[in-house]
Amino acid sequence: MHSYDQYCALAKALDVLGSRWSLLIVRELLIRGPSRYTDLRDGLPGIATNLLAERLRELEQEGLVAREEAPPPVATTLFRLTPRGEQLRPIVEGLARWGAPLMADQDPKDAVRSHWLAWAL
Amino acid sequence: MHSYDQYCALAKALDVLGSRWSLLIVRELLIRGPSRYTDLRDGLPGIATNLLAERLRELEQEGLVAREEAPPPVATTLFRLTPRGEQLRPIVEGLARWGAPLMADQDPKDAVRSHWLAWAL
Repeated sequence: MHSYDQYCALAKALDVLGSRWSLLIVRELLIRGPSRYTDLRDGLPGIATNLLAERLRELEQEGLVAREEAPPPVATTLFRLTPRGEQLRPIVEGLARWGAPLMADQDPKDAVRSHWLAWAL
Repeated sequence: MHSYDQYCALAKALDVLGSRWSLLIVRELLIRGPSRYTDLRDGLPGIATNLLAERLRELEQEGLVAREEAPPPVATTLFRLTPRGEQLRPIVEGLARWGAPLMADQDPKDAVRSHWLAWAL
């Protein structure tokens, strides 16, 4: 994502969040809590696996996501939102509320997944 | 912008709003009210003029923007937000508030414009 290079708080936010998939990754982490890479990938059908890794790295660099090594028996890397990332919750919910009327345009059977209706609430 | 093709209200919102520049165009219209094309272009340094036209057309198709012919002496086309577009105000403000801390990273003199600090409030 090229920076807009504007001295504007909205443009700065979009410099961080405006890349394709970024806000959907935040959505997954808001809903799932700390998540394994494979669970994130399963929640984001259509994302290229290297793109998910790249986006997670960007979000980590921007201080929205942290990774931690879970001890056995999990014994894997978990990704979670930082407090800064958690601050996006009302924004993500607001966007989902705004997008809810658009859900009527699509038959859930035609979409990749069908259990995100809860976001319309 | 490719659709995410997910049955998710957030993904639907981003299908409409996620293209580069779209939310900055909404910002301009929220602040300026009904605007001439040239004023929008001046408020969005760096946007290609054909891209602005394309984004306005998309936003119009999605029902966020309407165009009207202003009578003389203005005698030009004005672009304005529809009520559906106006509903984005709290979301845009929320994003700007979230982005405000990022303003500290940049010297305003290095940025294209310097009067968007108000969005940090």
